[in-house]
Amino acid sequence: MMGVSHIRHRNIVTAMDNPTAIASLTRLSAQPEPLRFGGKALRLGKLIDAGLPTPPGFAIASDEGMNGLLAAITTLEDEAGVRLGQGLLVSLRSSPVDEAAPTAPAILNIGLTAGAMDHITARVGARAALDLRRRLIQTFASASMDADPEAFENALYDRLKFAGEDSEDALDETALKALEADYLAIVRDETDQDFPEDAADQLSMGITALTRAWNAPTARIVRQAKGADPEVGQGLIVQVMSLGLGPEPSGAGVGALRSAQTGEVGVNGRFLPQAQGEDALMGMRTPRLLTRAAREEAGQNKPSLEELAPAAAAKIIELAEQAEVAIGDACNFEFTVEHGEVSVLDTQPLVANTRAAIRVAVELAESGAISREEAILRIEPGALTSHLHPMIADGAPRDVIGKGLPASPGAATGAIVFSPEAAEAAAAQERGVILVRVETSPEDIRGMHAATGVLTVRGGMTSHAAVIARGLGAPCVVGAGDIQLDQSARTLTTADGRVFSEGDTITLDGSAGEALAGVSELVQPEISGSFATLMGWADEARRMKVRANADTATDARVAQGFNVDGIGLCRTEHMFFEKGRINMMRRMILASEETDRRAALDQLLPMQRGDFVDLFTIMAGLPVTIRLLDPPLHEFLPHGENELRTLADDMDLPLRVVKDRADEMREFNPMLGNRGCRVGVAFPEIYEMQARAVFEAAIIAGEQTGAPVTPEIMIPLVSANRELELLTTRVEAVAEQVRRETGAPLTYHIGAMVETPRAALRAEDLASTAEFFSFGTNDLTQMTYGLSRDDAGRFMRDYVAKGVFPEDPFHSLDLEGVGELLLLAAERGRKGRPGITLGLCGEHGGDPASVRFCELAGFDYVSCSPFRAPIARLAAAQATILNRRGD
Amino acid sequence: MMGVSHIRHRNIVTAMDNPTAIASLTRLSAQPEPLRFGGKALRLGKLIDAGLPTPPGFAIASDEGMNGLLAAITTLEDEAGVRLGQGLLVSLRSSPVDEAAPTAPAILNIGLTAGAMDHITARVGARAALDLRRRLIQTFASASMDADPEAFENALYDRLKFAGEDSEDALDETALKALEADYLAIVRDETDQDFPEDAADQLSMGITALTRAWNAPTARIVRQAKGADPEVGQGLIVQVMSLGLGPEPSGAGVGALRSAQTGEVGVNGRFLPQAQGEDALMGMRTPRLLTRAAREEAGQNKPSLEELAPAAAAKIIELAEQAEVAIGDACNFEFTVEHGEVSVLDTQPLVANTRAAIRVAVELAESGAISREEAILRIEPGALTSHLHPMIADGAPRDVIGKGLPASPGAATGAIVFSPEAAEAAAAQERGVILVRVETSPEDIRGMHAATGVLTVRGGMTSHAAVIARGLGAPCVVGAGDIQLDQSARTLTTADGRVFSEGDTITLDGSAGEALAGVSELVQPEISGSFATLMGWADEARRMKVRANADTATDARVAQGFNVDGIGLCRTEHMFFEKGRINMMRRMILASEETDRRAALDQLLPMQRGDFVDLFTIMAGLPVTIRLLDPPLHEFLPHGENELRTLADDMDLPLRVVKDRADEMREFNPMLGNRGCRVGVAFPEIYEMQARAVFEAAIIAGEQTGAPVTPEIMIPLVSANRELELLTTRVEAVAEQVRRETGAPLTYHIGAMVETPRAALRAEDLASTAEFFSFGTNDLTQMTYGLSRDDAGRFMRDYVAKGVFPEDPFHSLDLEGVGELLLLAAERGRKGRPGITLGLCGEHGGDPASVRFCELAGFDYVSCSPFRAPIARLAAAQATILNRRGD
Repeated sequence: MMGVSHIRHRNIVTAMDNPTAIASLTRLSAQPEPLRFGGKALRLGKLIDAGLPTPPGFAIASDEGMNGLLAAITTLEDEAGVRLGQGLLVSLRSSPVDEAAPTAPAILNIGLTAGAMDHITARVGARAALDLRRRLIQTFASASMDADPEAFENALYDRLKFAGEDSEDALDETALKALEADYLAIVRDETDQDFPEDAADQLSMGITALTRAWNAPTARIVRQAKGADPEVGQGLIVQVMSLGLGPEPSGAGVGALRSAQTGEVGVNGRFLPQAQGEDALMGMRTPRLLTRAAREEAGQNKPSLEELAPAAAAKIIELAEQAEVAIGDACNFEFTVEHGEVSVLDTQPLVANTRAAIRVAVELAESGAISREEAILRIEPGALTSHLHPMIADGAPRDVIGKGLPASPGAATGAIVFSPEAAEAAAAQERGVILVRVETSPEDIRGMHAATGVLTVRGGMTSHAAVIARGLGAPCVVGAGDIQLDQSARTLTTADGRVFSEGDTITLDGSAGEALAGVSELVQPEISGSFATLMGWADEARRMKVRANADTATDARVAQGFNVDGIGLCRTEHMFFEKGRINMMRRMILASEETDRRAALDQLLPMQRGDFVDLFTIMAGLPVTIRLLDPPLHEFLPHGENELRTLADDMDLPLRVVKDRADEMREFNPMLGNRGCRVGVAFPEIYEMQARAVFEAAIIAGEQTGAPVTPEIMIPLVSANRELELLTTRVEAVAEQVRRETGAPLTYHIGAMVETPRAALRAEDLASTAEFFSFGTNDLTQMTYGLSRDDAGRFMRDYVAKGVFPEDPFHSLDLEGVGELLLLAAERGRKGRPGITLGLCGEHGGDPASVRFCELAGFDYVSCSPFRAPIARLAAAQATILNRRGD
Repeated sequence: MMGVSHIRHRNIVTAMDNPTAIASLTRLSAQPEPLRFGGKALRLGKLIDAGLPTPPGFAIASDEGMNGLLAAITTLEDEAGVRLGQGLLVSLRSSPVDEAAPTAPAILNIGLTAGAMDHITARVGARAALDLRRRLIQTFASASMDADPEAFENALYDRLKFAGEDSEDALDETALKALEADYLAIVRDETDQDFPEDAADQLSMGITALTRAWNAPTARIVRQAKGADPEVGQGLIVQVMSLGLGPEPSGAGVGALRSAQTGEVGVNGRFLPQAQGEDALMGMRTPRLLTRAAREEAGQNKPSLEELAPAAAAKIIELAEQAEVAIGDACNFEFTVEHGEVSVLDTQPLVANTRAAIRVAVELAESGAISREEAILRIEPGALTSHLHPMIADGAPRDVIGKGLPASPGAATGAIVFSPEAAEAAAAQERGVILVRVETSPEDIRGMHAATGVLTVRGGMTSHAAVIARGLGAPCVVGAGDIQLDQSARTLTTADGRVFSEGDTITLDGSAGEALAGVSELVQPEISGSFATLMGWADEARRMKVRANADTATDARVAQGFNVDGIGLCRTEHMFFEKGRINMMRRMILASEETDRRAALDQLLPMQRGDFVDLFTIMAGLPVTIRLLDPPLHEFLPHGENELRTLADDMDLPLRVVKDRADEMREFNPMLGNRGCRVGVAFPEIYEMQARAVFEAAIIAGEQTGAPVTPEIMIPLVSANRELELLTTRVEAVAEQVRRETGAPLTYHIGAMVETPRAALRAEDLASTAEFFSFGTNDLTQMTYGLSRDDAGRFMRDYVAKGVFPEDPFHSLDLEGVGELLLLAAERGRKGRPGITLGLCGEHGGDPASVRFCELAGFDYVSCSPFRAPIARLAAAQATILNRRGD
């Protein structure tokens, strides 16, 4: 043991006096905070604990010194029954704490000093021993002594040339001996040092080298680029080597139990005889497949491992299954066959797509390898979108013609149209079209319904186009500022000058925010099977309700298909854009007297009532929250001169009057204008009509379905309790009238949409009137930041890129600002009305981090686009579980 | 004392068992909370305490029962040396706690029962006794027994007719005796009760009647209409009568020491022989004037009091002077002369205009009657506007042709112009013009400078027109939606169809929010004399600094004229609208490359630097806060097709490019768009140019004036600290460059404009970077309410009228919502940087209630329009005083 004590005297191990955490791989998972050692060490420990043939070893925790290393080595030597420097070889591997971080390659065969050659020769033969020795020199000197790897490659190349061979496994003992001498000379030349012939020196130098490599500035940059925490630590694994060289069958391979594409079970992988580590993945020799079936399917000639060594192949399949159960997750693994003995040496998580990940999680839970909760926590909710929309196939060619924001996920192919009318016409002929606009307005809604996808030049993640498209579940790219539209020529010009005309086919990738030329191969959604099972578990696990934002019967049916707990936001304004209604709406708006306005509203009443009857019937007793009219009235008026003229003719009014009225109503900042309850206060007859429609519909639907309906009426854009009081009184009076007229029982709730900072601040006040709060986080975010969602798109990407905002606050809830207002409003609201119902109905309702926040805040529900409801359901389940665990 | 004990048995005095607060007028001011008894009682008490001949009495506190009434009466009887019912007569007067509340008339001569007639006859003679008796019956029965006053008037009329006389003072004993019988019969007929002949009954019934009258619903409505608190209480005064009837000289009168118009000393008033109470003010007989000089000036024949009874007149003048000192305020007073003895019976505050009120307060303080602090507290700061602007003379005829919001105070007459160009042309000819626009935009600024007043059809209190006009000190009416403009015909049509053409003369009353036809008589401002004295005292008293919002050298000079402590907000954007600059600005905006942008900025630099040199030189070392560019860049581009074409020609760019760029920059909600520091983050070269201009100018001005300049650079519209960090780094780098280039010492501060709710919430964070916060309460109010100041004007009046908002939050700070954010930001800011400088620079800086709030919050300064600086200075002084007093 001279060599080991020698470690004390080397200056490269100055960290020796620091506190240490070195632990045996055996029962590593019983260590406090085992993740300090990295995921790889932990998985190896689990394999050892499960009795799999994994060589013993120990792990060094991240950022710890090497105090205790001597003892650990001694223990390992005892376990292996052989001493380092006397035939014990070990490997040294990086085991990062964040597995997204890339690692330096492992250093193998540590301990194969000149003095150990006899021991190894006795074990695997002289040729294999020499091969292992030259592998050690090459790898070790490159990794730990700053020698140039190319020098060794050149020497090998020269020796091969001299021997007239193509591959190093054809080199004989003599050649390998000469190569060893070449390599030792290179080390001396390159590093001015001799290759260390003390086994413990080799190990300590290797540890120092891997630590230094990890902490290098470039490594931090690479980690950041890969999405890992640049400051995260690295554990290290020292493990007894199982050698892949020597008497047949010997070799090394990599494999996986499951397909990374589908998650289906079926061992796949590669094997290389007389090889070590990742030789099977890189290197000059073609590896063998593991099974005969795989070989035949691939049309390979060289026999598979199953054919070369049937027992070893069978063992590998058996071990793959055991390994998954032991680890509790699907993984790739590295194995070695040494004279027919199989060892599992290393594992990595299987980088599966979401479909595969769901299948793995569900099957592991069903087999009992993990709990259902664990399965729920395994799946990133945001990744479910790939399940819910058609997606462009992995690896399909992409001819990008425009880049914007990924406003609504999924992919669609269709012919370009530049107007909502053209979209409707095409839809009538059942042709798929992509509606391309500078931006959309409520007048485009019918066209958007007709289109299979929407592309706009302007707008942010919560622009009109984005919000409507998400509601429709249609792929949408907004803010594609690099394309130019010429409406009159009906052309679209890309940044590189290509011109596309109406009718040309393009494909939208709403998940990536890209428009592509031509047709792309699409993968269709899959929501049954494992997906359905997982969602069922999530629904059982979650505390919070998940409702959908649904404005129409169609929306409601989609929402029901996604198993929502009700409708959290029905925006009634969209109902008025339908044909036959918009004109009545305009008549109402242009009326100068209340009586004229009421006459127009009387005609809208049965239509609106019909809408609500449908909604209530579809939702069959589930709660439905109806927001009274919210947008400024001018949004219902047309803009162009011609449209105004037509309107004037229709209304039998002078053009001048119509124009003046439209002009009067124009606003500088419509988002902050005469909208929401301000319209209700100014024209209470509008809200009265809507309330009547809701109440009458509730009675009708209740009678028709037998499920009593308790509608929730929501008053938007409140900033003072007096607004609520005034309007609540009106709505209650209507309810009383309807009760008297129909003699039917009628229950209902009136609440406030809390979407101005002032409403949040005054929540205690508001709660004296409101029976529920629904947080409209889109507008609340706008007002808290002083940032219009429609205008933010132009600079948000830049802002996020510069790190000014960590994320787009319209996409993921700004916890520090908007979040504080929500917490404050929840607290004050509960003070004003203990047990008040609290929900969130902004776009954030479909964002997992925001859902987690709502769970922590104890909200009763989140409401989001129907197409994001599964994401919210899964996120809510995860939040419940994590919250209960106190994470 | 039978009568008094009798009170116990009357059910109208059921309040008897309640706790009572009855106190003698003597030393009333030493009572706890003497204002419970009303201001009138308190003033009478002060007169008695000062030894003036005011009859003794006691006061009943507001809303208290009458427990203790018996004792009080007994004390009063002892003091007067005569018992009620045996010749002691008392008056009963209302003494409201809020003196804005109108009161019921006093009931006089209580105690003149049939049984007391002998005592009174012995005192004033039979005829006068009978006259007093019929006065009591008439007044008492009307006030306390619901008798119809007209019945008594008719009876009197009949008796006068029968006697062939015009006036009741001509009725003889016989006639008055008959009239007494008539009156007693009327009481019986009208009320089914006898006139109460028990003195104590009379008093208790009177008290009940006045209390009931005060609490009547109509009285509440009237109080509200008069601007008093409808729920305020009423004290009552019971006071020994001094009789104005009887041996000559006897009579009653009213007077005041000072002119209510000017505040100048000079007794004025009226006197009526053989009269009581307010006879001298109403009634059929013509009163006499008090002095011979006044009589001669008025050209009256009947001798004045001075001529009738010189000793009494002299006494009154002496008492008037003493009364003012005793009360410590100017007042009207009511006096009685009984056989030559003068008594002061009642006082009311002199309803003086602001100029008079200031003079009174200053003279009283100079005489030592009140303290300077008291003088400061006397003047309503908002009323100072009448001192600072020309006003339409009181009583001048008003032909209102349009009503809008009083956006900027003062009045101006001029010819109508409909374009800024026409305004400039007229100004060149030194003609006063009123600029009439639908709304104004930055392009109108030069025209607004040229106009003497601005009238707009659209816009709220903080619309562009309103803000600019207030800055200019020009009268402005905005949102006059009842007038219609025809720009092509150059006419203005009023709601009633009158048409005014360009060149027609109108007058704007910016204080009332009215446009008037023709020329109106104006009163010019007066800021020397008492005003200057008062402001000097205010400046000594206040803790907070008052700065001005000033964008130009002209503004700065005006601000200096108003003795401000610095500039709290210099909006640099206005500097770029000047001729020769706007084109350079547009060239900068239209540049597609940073180098082109920098070239244009290089040309703007010397101009901007010149601006700052002027500002710093004028302010001579006082702090100047410069806000870096705030508006969205598209505000600098022209709108019309023709203007765009001209611009394209100037820039040598294709029209298409200019239009596309303008179109790209258009925003849905500019208020929430790409403005403020977002522009700075996107184009840091703009802020760098501005910072360089500031620093170079600071060095130049410091060298020129010898007063070192420490500029304060303010970054607008911050919502995250990262924005501040990025821009602060840039500004600091420029400072370092300038230091290196010039070798001059340079100190400066960088701070944040806190105007988004998020900035307020994240204040602790921001304070780690910002050396000061300036609260931009205009924008903060907009965002907290979700309400655009430009669009709110259309419904704000209605909202305030309906009580939805108690006040326009853009006018008076919303303490409950916006105020909470300010307090929270102040607290967090101080946590992040102890001692951080805090100021407020919104329009609210000139609103007294908001200034008070800032004092309570411990802000360092408020900044407002120069023309409101005196208001802010006075309000700040009042706030300091009240705060110190703990009020």
